[in-house]
Amino acid sequence: MAFRFEIIKKDPFSKARLGRIETNHGSFSTPAFLPVGTQGTVKSLTPEELVEVGVEVILGNTYHLYLRPGHETIGRLGGLHTFIHWNRPILTDSGGYQIFSLSKLRKISDDGVTFQSHIDGSLHYLTPEKVVEIQRTLGSDIAMVLDECIPYPSPYEYVKASTSLTTQWATRSLEIRKETDPALFAIVQGGMYQDLREESAQTLVKMDFQGYAIGGVSVGEPKSLMRSVLEWTTSFLPENAPRYLMGVGTPEDILEAVMMGIDLFDCVLPTRNARNGMLFTSIGKMSIKQAQYAEDERPVDEICACYTCRHYSRAYLRHLYLANEILSSRLNTIHNLYYYMNFIKGIQEAIREGHLLDFHKTHCSHPNGLEPEDSAHRLSTWG
Amino acid sequence: MAFRFEIIKKDPFSKARLGRIETNHGSFSTPAFLPVGTQGTVKSLTPEELVEVGVEVILGNTYHLYLRPGHETIGRLGGLHTFIHWNRPILTDSGGYQIFSLSKLRKISDDGVTFQSHIDGSLHYLTPEKVVEIQRTLGSDIAMVLDECIPYPSPYEYVKASTSLTTQWATRSLEIRKETDPALFAIVQGGMYQDLREESAQTLVKMDFQGYAIGGVSVGEPKSLMRSVLEWTTSFLPENAPRYLMGVGTPEDILEAVMMGIDLFDCVLPTRNARNGMLFTSIGKMSIKQAQYAEDERPVDEICACYTCRHYSRAYLRHLYLANEILSSRLNTIHNLYYYMNFIKGIQEAIREGHLLDFHKTHCSHPNGLEPEDSAHRLSTWG
Repeated sequence: MAFRFEIIKKDPFSKARLGRIETNHGSFSTPAFLPVGTQGTVKSLTPEELVEVGVEVILGNTYHLYLRPGHETIGRLGGLHTFIHWNRPILTDSGGYQIFSLSKLRKISDDGVTFQSHIDGSLHYLTPEKVVEIQRTLGSDIAMVLDECIPYPSPYEYVKASTSLTTQWATRSLEIRKETDPALFAIVQGGMYQDLREESAQTLVKMDFQGYAIGGVSVGEPKSLMRSVLEWTTSFLPENAPRYLMGVGTPEDILEAVMMGIDLFDCVLPTRNARNGMLFTSIGKMSIKQAQYAEDERPVDEICACYTCRHYSRAYLRHLYLANEILSSRLNTIHNLYYYMNFIKGIQEAIREGHLLDFHKTHCSHPNGLEPEDSAHRLSTWG
Repeated sequence: MAFRFEIIKKDPFSKARLGRIETNHGSFSTPAFLPVGTQGTVKSLTPEELVEVGVEVILGNTYHLYLRPGHETIGRLGGLHTFIHWNRPILTDSGGYQIFSLSKLRKISDDGVTFQSHIDGSLHYLTPEKVVEIQRTLGSDIAMVLDECIPYPSPYEYVKASTSLTTQWATRSLEIRKETDPALFAIVQGGMYQDLREESAQTLVKMDFQGYAIGGVSVGEPKSLMRSVLEWTTSFLPENAPRYLMGVGTPEDILEAVMMGIDLFDCVLPTRNARNGMLFTSIGKMSIKQAQYAEDERPVDEICACYTCRHYSRAYLRHLYLANEILSSRLNTIHNLYYYMNFIKGIQEAIREGHLLDFHKTHCSHPNGLEPEDSAHRLSTWG
């Protein structure tokens, strides 16, 4: 399968890179933010609306699609792109995170992992080989290897053994790869231990992966620790392969990670917050249900050009939210995703123009993020 | 306020009429079907999507909007059209049906009705004058007078007294009307009694209303009785005013009522059925959750040109429904409303071309409707 990563420009003041990834379903710019399409839909939106807010690539959850409707069903229906009417790139995760966060009764062995479906309690057994096969059948553009997502905190010996297993699984995933398969990314684990992160990264980069993800962060650790993990890890990753920070994060998290050399991000934050009435704006987060907006004629964000801000008042959005209307989730999701995509485009543009430090200065006092003392947490996995 | 009803063509074989209604927010063709926008949104859709499926006029529920966010709030925000971003005609009901079906502790007097909100239990008092004022403040194009919706079955004496009260309320509604007010429609009641229906219609048509609704049907009575009520009533209604059958119905109900001289319809059926996975098709109703559609690549209706049928398979729609995804409600609602609007356009075209009998022949064996032995019922009031 076609896969190419090209670095277009490097930021002189940070490790940020402007790049472009080519796949069989077209190309997209990096740094990129991937909205989460858990069950074959980015919740509440159509593909056309995703394109309209600027989305170039989305994430699909292997765990969910494997359980329902089943990867073989999707395969027989022409693959995930056809099934969900999205003809641009799709990255699928490995299901590792969901097996360890959503499913019941999971039991791990060297060979694979047994778990119980969170939907109907049925028993399933997945191996690294099977997970590659599932993503192949889905017709993903970028696939992830099966990993064990290590909880935080975890003792050193456990993390060491688990990381070693993830690395073995990565090797096995490579061995069964076919030429027509999706691009395959490895996942660096190693918990919060510097030597294990370094060892994981060093071992994986010796193999023939097309990209590298940093897993096992945003699992409840302090933000400062997430930064350390990024620092330990990225310095061992090759320049010429994309780097993917899984499950992150707030706009500020993303900007900082870009400056540490990360290219890809996914997170449920903009979509889930939207459904909960929490909106990102140029002057900070807004909880649309607040009484102060009851007769507020202004758009959510007066400098925003999204469909929602062009046509609807805060008062109407508050009404829809309180009345539990489906349109509330839609309009809020459009706004939040537009905000994120605009933010990412701002980062891309700033790298291109050499203004990333200014961009950071403008946005580091920005109140959309978690506070510094907050812990990084993926908030589970539902997009 | 501008309001004009023009009959363009009468069907030679039935009482059907092709017409056009002009309002301050543009005109629309009759027979017309009004999707229900209960709380200031036709559930799950944007105004642009309504236009795309062919909707020309929508209904708003006075009861719901009065309670939340409040008509005065909507008035201060520029009126209902501005508030919900819909610049075409809006008909608002009087709230009568909802007061008698949704609210608790209702108490009726000659002067008005006291009831408890279904949202927070708060007490409210509405008079016919207040109901006109609310619809005036909303900026409705067509307003309805407050009526008492009589349950089925009800004893003669009760129906007689109630119908007389509705007529008194209609008189009072007219008395306070201003020149800039919405067009005002009276509501014929009279339960299932021929003499009371006739008396109600005859009394109301002597007054200066711009249109006449037939209320108190689709409340659980047999279909044959609804037909009788239509027959008794319409013969006393003036030719040159639009006739509105409230809360009806299936495509077959609508077609039959058109042939009995009805011009306007509203019903939650296409939108609510959509959210419940029940789809209208050219070959009958389809329950999209059925296992037979699990790998069915075909669109819902192979001869349908709606957005949903152009881009999505039955298998995907089944998946979205089972996964409880918001997109399920959206895509199903688009399809069902498109079906209804297409059906109405077919009726209009058939009257224009003089083919209504053929149209009826084609559609009378059509399996989308309730069975003849089913009772007519509005299924409560939520769109």
